[in-house]
Amino acid sequence: MRIGIDVGGTGIQVGLVSKELRILSEASIPTRTDIPFEDQVQQIASCVLSVISAANLDSEEIESVGVGIPGIASASGEIIKCTNMGWHHVPFSEVFNRYYNKPVYVDNDANVAALAESVAGVSAGTSSSVFITIGTGIGSGIIIDGKIWKGCHGIGGELGHVILDLDGVPCSCGNHGCLERYCSATAIIRMGRDAVKQHPDSLLLKLAENDPANISAKLVFDAARQEDPVAVEVYHRFIGYLAQAVASVVNLIDPEVIVLGGGVSKAGTFLLKPLVREFPRYVLFDDQPLPDIKLAVLGSEAGIIGASMLS
Amino acid sequence: MRIGIDVGGTGIQVGLVSKELRILSEASIPTRTDIPFEDQVQQIASCVLSVISAANLDSEEIESVGVGIPGIASASGEIIKCTNMGWHHVPFSEVFNRYYNKPVYVDNDANVAALAESVAGVSAGTSSSVFITIGTGIGSGIIIDGKIWKGCHGIGGELGHVILDLDGVPCSCGNHGCLERYCSATAIIRMGRDAVKQHPDSLLLKLAENDPANISAKLVFDAARQEDPVAVEVYHRFIGYLAQAVASVVNLIDPEVIVLGGGVSKAGTFLLKPLVREFPRYVLFDDQPLPDIKLAVLGSEAGIIGASMLS
Repeated sequence: MRIGIDVGGTGIQVGLVSKELRILSEASIPTRTDIPFEDQVQQIASCVLSVISAANLDSEEIESVGVGIPGIASASGEIIKCTNMGWHHVPFSEVFNRYYNKPVYVDNDANVAALAESVAGVSAGTSSSVFITIGTGIGSGIIIDGKIWKGCHGIGGELGHVILDLDGVPCSCGNHGCLERYCSATAIIRMGRDAVKQHPDSLLLKLAENDPANISAKLVFDAARQEDPVAVEVYHRFIGYLAQAVASVVNLIDPEVIVLGGGVSKAGTFLLKPLVREFPRYVLFDDQPLPDIKLAVLGSEAGIIGASMLS
Repeated sequence: MRIGIDVGGTGIQVGLVSKELRILSEASIPTRTDIPFEDQVQQIASCVLSVISAANLDSEEIESVGVGIPGIASASGEIIKCTNMGWHHVPFSEVFNRYYNKPVYVDNDANVAALAESVAGVSAGTSSSVFITIGTGIGSGIIIDGKIWKGCHGIGGELGHVILDLDGVPCSCGNHGCLERYCSATAIIRMGRDAVKQHPDSLLLKLAENDPANISAKLVFDAARQEDPVAVEVYHRFIGYLAQAVASVVNLIDPEVIVLGGGVSKAGTFLLKPLVREFPRYVLFDDQPLPDIKLAVLGSEAGIIGASMLS
C-alpha cells in the first residue's frame, strides 16, 4: 500500500492506494499559501497519518509516499520550483520525514497523471504516451518505455511553453507565442471575449448575461453546440490550434497514444472528434499509422494514483 | 566489423567500421534516381563487397549492414518513404540480401548521425541527446537512454516539421510555419534575398556579384562577419529563430546535450556563441541547469558510423 498526494491550487488530496492502483480511502486539506512551508508540510503529514489510521492500517504497512506538484522537483524530493505555492528550493522529503519517516518521491503533477493513465487508465498497456492536460494552462507528461521522461535536468515535458507562434501572444512566463496561449481554457476565453466585442448580438454574449467577464471555456463550447456562429468560429480556431499542437507532438515524439485531460477535455467527443479528424493534416508522414488520441479516464484520481506510483 | 551506408542526395557512401567505431575503408557511388530501385540496391551491394575485398577481409567477418536514408524505414528493413530517392514501400533488406546475405538495418539519416555522435562524437558518454542537422532542411534525431527514439510508429524525430509559426511561411510538406522554414540554410537564403531587395547597396549583394540568386547561407554569414548591417540583421533573426527552436526542444525533451550538425553548423562559434547566449531566455525553467549546446564533430562520417551501429 502506498500514499499518493496531489497538491493543487485550492486543495491537497491525500489517498491510500492499493497495489492494484485503487484508491481505498481519501482525505483533503485546503491549500494554504499564507502559512510557512514547514507548517503546510506538517498539515499534509497529519492528513496522511489520519488517512492511514482511518483505514485501520498500521503505518508500517505503507511502502512509500508520492507527491504530485504543479512544479518541478529533484529525485531526492527537494521541490525546486512550485510557483503557485511559493515554494522554491524547499526540502519537502526532509521536512515530511520529521512527521512520518517513509521514502518520499515528488514529481510534476502532469507527469504523475501521465504515469497513472499509462498504467491504470486509458493508455494502460502502452509503453509510450503523452498526456496533455488542458486547463487554465497546458500541462504535459511524457512516458517512454513505461517511465516518466522528465528530461535530463528535470525541466522537460513542458509542452505548454513550446513556441507555437513566433512573436505571438504574450505568455505569463515572459515569452511570446507559447503553445498554452492558444490551446488552453484561457485561450478559449480570450478568443471568446474578443469575438463578442465584434458581435454584441451573439448568443455567446447572451449566455454570458451580456457580460464578457462571464465567458468561460465551457460557455463558448455550449454556445458552439447551439450553433452560435461566433462561438463556432472560436471553437474551430481552438481545434485548429490544438490540432497543430498535437501534430507537433507526433512529428517530434510520435507516442503510441496522446491522452487529453484537464477541464477542457470534459467536452468529450465534441472536442475529440474534430481534433482526430484535423490533426493528421499537420503530420509530416500522415499516410502512416498515427498515434491514437484519447480522453483521460481517471479524472482527478490520476493525481493521487500517479503520485503513489512514484519510486 | 560492420558496414555502414549513408544514402545521400548526390552520393552513397559505404564504409567498413571497426568495433571501436573507426572507419577502416570507404568507397562511394553516385546516387541514381534515374534507375530502378533494384538496380540501385545492386550497385550498393557491389560497392559493399568491393570495400570488403579491398580491405582483404572475408565477407564472413562482417556482422551486419546498416543504412541511413533521408526517409523512414521499418524495423524489418523495408524503406517506407524516401522521397528524394523516389522509394516508397520498397523491401531494401530483401533485395540487398540477394547479393549479400547479412542482417540489414535501415533508419533515418539524422537518427543514425545522432546515435554516432552520442557514442563516438561530441555527445559521447551522455544518455540523452538531440541532434539537429541544419542544412537545406532541418533533420533531427533523438537519443533517450542511449537508444534512438524514433517514435512508436517510426515517424517521430522530425523537429523540422514542428510548427513554429501559426499561419507562417509555406513549407514543402504542405503545411505552414514549419520550424525548418525559419531555421535552415534555405531560410537564411530566403531572408538574405528578401533583405537585399530592400537594400541594393548592401555588402551582401555586392559579395553575391549583384545577383540575389548567388546568395547562400555561407555568404550571408560571411557578410555578417564583415559587419554588413543587412546581413547582420538576417543573422540575428536566424539566431533568434534557432534559439526558440532549441528552447522548445529543451522545454519538451530536455536532453543532456543538443548537438548541431549540417552545413550551417560549419559556421562554428559564430553560430554557437550567440545561440548559447540567447536560447535560455525562451526556456521555462531558465534558472535551472540547462542542456549543453555543442557542435557535431564527426561531420560526414557520422552517417557511416551511425548506420554501422544499427541493430
